[in-house]
Amino acid sequence: MAKKNRYGLILAGGRGTRFWPLSRRSRAKQVLNFLGDRSLIQQTVDRLGPAIPPERIWIVTNSHLRAEIIRQLPEVPPAQILAEPAQRNTAPCIGLAAHILQSLDPDAVMGVFPADHFISRPAEYRRLLKPAFETAERGHIAVIGIQPRWPETGYGYIEFPPGTRPGTLEAVKVKRFREKPALPAAKRFVKAGNFYWNAGMFFWKAGVLLDALRRFEPDTAAILDSLPPFAGRGFHAAVTKSFPRCANISVDYAVLERAQNVMGVAAGDIGWNDVGSWHAVYELMPKDAAGNVFRGGALVEASAGNYVDAGGKLVALLGVTNLVVVDTPDALLIADRDRAQDVGLLVKELERRKKEELL
Amino acid sequence: MAKKNRYGLILAGGRGTRFWPLSRRSRAKQVLNFLGDRSLIQQTVDRLGPAIPPERIWIVTNSHLRAEIIRQLPEVPPAQILAEPAQRNTAPCIGLAAHILQSLDPDAVMGVFPADHFISRPAEYRRLLKPAFETAERGHIAVIGIQPRWPETGYGYIEFPPGTRPGTLEAVKVKRFREKPALPAAKRFVKAGNFYWNAGMFFWKAGVLLDALRRFEPDTAAILDSLPPFAGRGFHAAVTKSFPRCANISVDYAVLERAQNVMGVAAGDIGWNDVGSWHAVYELMPKDAAGNVFRGGALVEASAGNYVDAGGKLVALLGVTNLVVVDTPDALLIADRDRAQDVGLLVKELERRKKEELL
Repeated sequence: MAKKNRYGLILAGGRGTRFWPLSRRSRAKQVLNFLGDRSLIQQTVDRLGPAIPPERIWIVTNSHLRAEIIRQLPEVPPAQILAEPAQRNTAPCIGLAAHILQSLDPDAVMGVFPADHFISRPAEYRRLLKPAFETAERGHIAVIGIQPRWPETGYGYIEFPPGTRPGTLEAVKVKRFREKPALPAAKRFVKAGNFYWNAGMFFWKAGVLLDALRRFEPDTAAILDSLPPFAGRGFHAAVTKSFPRCANISVDYAVLERAQNVMGVAAGDIGWNDVGSWHAVYELMPKDAAGNVFRGGALVEASAGNYVDAGGKLVALLGVTNLVVVDTPDALLIADRDRAQDVGLLVKELERRKKEELL
Repeated sequence: MAKKNRYGLILAGGRGTRFWPLSRRSRAKQVLNFLGDRSLIQQTVDRLGPAIPPERIWIVTNSHLRAEIIRQLPEVPPAQILAEPAQRNTAPCIGLAAHILQSLDPDAVMGVFPADHFISRPAEYRRLLKPAFETAERGHIAVIGIQPRWPETGYGYIEFPPGTRPGTLEAVKVKRFREKPALPAAKRFVKAGNFYWNAGMFFWKAGVLLDALRRFEPDTAAILDSLPPFAGRGFHAAVTKSFPRCANISVDYAVLERAQNVMGVAAGDIGWNDVGSWHAVYELMPKDAAGNVFRGGALVEASAGNYVDAGGKLVALLGVTNLVVVDTPDALLIADRDRAQDVGLLVKELERRKKEELL
C-alpha cells in the first residue's frame, strides 16, 4: 500500500549525447525506447507505479525535453513536470523540488530517481523502496547501493560496513562515499565486497534535504528559501530569475559526502544497468547466432557482433564485425563498438561546428 | 573530322549489382554518377563525341533503364536507344544493331563500347579510335587492348605478337584471345608483356560482323536476317517475337575467338578502369589524409581508408577502418572494402527473398 506522503522525483535533465544520432536535445536518452516498447523514463514511472503512483511523481527536466515528456507521460500531471530555467547540477534541482514538495506537504518524503537507467527485475527493485523510505521517514538520508559486477571507474562507490550482504533489505550506516576511482582502487573495492555502486537513488524528507542544504550550501539554500510557495503567484518568474544563481554542484558533493546520517540499502540482483553507451544497449539486447543485434530488417554475410538500429530501413552487412550502426534521417553513425563511449566526442565536434540542426 | 559512316554502339544492358544499394534495376551502374558530375554512360557519349557525334550513337539497353537513359542523353535520338526484348548476351544484341545499321547505311562501320567504364584520359583514348576504325574499314575486325596493371583474373586477355608496344597507334594481327585466366596464368601474361586486357571495345563493318555471325552462329544470324528493315512496319514486333530465340552467347565466344582476321591496337596509358566494385570507385576518388573518401558531410574520429556515400546525410565514423558505407533512403550497405566484389551476393539474397522494391 503506497503511503500518501511518499513522492518520487525523477531527474530527467540529461542529454545522453553518447546515444547520438538517435539522441538529440529534444529526444534525449531518457525519452528513447531502444530497450523495449516504452522509453526509459516511461519504464521508470511504470516501475515506481505500485509504490509511488503517477500523481505523486515529479519530474525535473529541461526546456528542450519537457513537451516530449508530457506527451509520453499523460498519467503524470503536467504541472509536476518542471523545466529548470538553467542547467545546474543535481543539488539545486533537487533542492527546488524539495522546496515545492515541502510547501505542498510538510510531511513529504522524497525518493530521487534517475530517468535513464534500466532495471530488468522491477519487482525485486521495488522491495528496496520500503526500507529506504522508512529510513528517510525516521529523519535519515537513505541511499541504494548496487553490487558491483566489474571494477567500473565511471561510477562513484558507497562504502558499506564490512560484511554487508546484498539483498537483506536492511538499511545500515554508510561509512563513506568514494568518488569515481582509478582502476586499482576500483579493483580493490570490488574485491573487498562492501563497496557498492552509487546509482543516484536517494531518499529523504524534503525538510531534511533543505536543512542539509542550509548547512552545507547556504547560498543556494537562501535562494530556495526566498522563493514564494509553488501554488502562489510569481513562483515561476521567481525561479526563472533566481535559479541560475544557485551553485552548480551535485547533491553527492553538496550533501551526501558531508552528511553524517546516511544509511544505505545494499541491493541484491535487480538487473540494474545505467545504459551508458550503445555498447551497453548491445549487451542488453537479444542477439542472433553470430552475436548481431538488429532493430529492423537485415541482410548479413560474414558479419558478427554488430549492433544495428536503422529504423525501418534494410541494413546489409558484408564482412564487418563489432560495429555500432545507428541510422537516422539526417545522420548516420558507424562506430567501433569498443569506442561507443566516445560518441560524445562527435557531439562536441558538432557543437564546435555549430551544427544546431544535428544536436 | 568525324567520318559520316562511323557509328558508335554503346552496350548498356548491365545491372551492376555490385553497386547495390545505389544501383537498382532502374538505376544501374551506367546511369550513376559516382565518378564526377556525369553518369558513366554520359561520360561515354561525351568521350566519343569528337569522333562519333551523338546523332550516330546507338544504345542497346533493357526496358528498366531505357527511360532513364533517354532522360540523361537528350542529344541522342530516342529511336536509337533500344531496349532488348529479352536479356541475351552481347552477340545477339550487337548483331541486332549491325542489322539495323546495315539497313540504314550499307557502308556502316561500328565501334562497340561498354557504357559503364571510366577513362581518365579521354583525348589519349580517342587517338586509338582512328587506327581501330581504319582497320575495320579495311574489312578486318579490330579490338583495343589495355596494358595490364596487375594479374587480374576477372578479365579476358588478348595475346598480341611478342614485342608489341603500347601506344604506337598501329593495328597488329592478334595471336589469340584468352579467357579469364587462373592467377598463375595471369601472372605469366603480365610478365610476358604482350598480353593485354580485353576491355570489350570492338570495331567492324556492320556487314563483316553479320557475315561472321552467319558463319559461326547461323541460327542467330538467320533470325536477324529474317527481320524487316528498321524503318519499316513491323520491325519492333518482329524483334520482340524472335529476339528471345537468339543464342545466349557473348560476341567474344561467338566471333572474336573464332575469327582469323582480328587486328589489335595496344593502348598506352588512357586511364582505363572498368569500375568493377565500390573498391574501384574508392581507388579512383580523391582521399583525405587518412585515406577516407566522402561524398557528403562527414565527422571523422580515428577512422581510415573508408569509402562513404550517403547522399546529403552527415556520416560520423568513430574508430572504423576500410569500410564501404553506402546509404540510400531504403537500404544501407556496410561492407569491408576487401569484400566489395561480393556485394552481388547480397543482391542475390534479396532476389531469393523476393524483395522486389529493393532490387
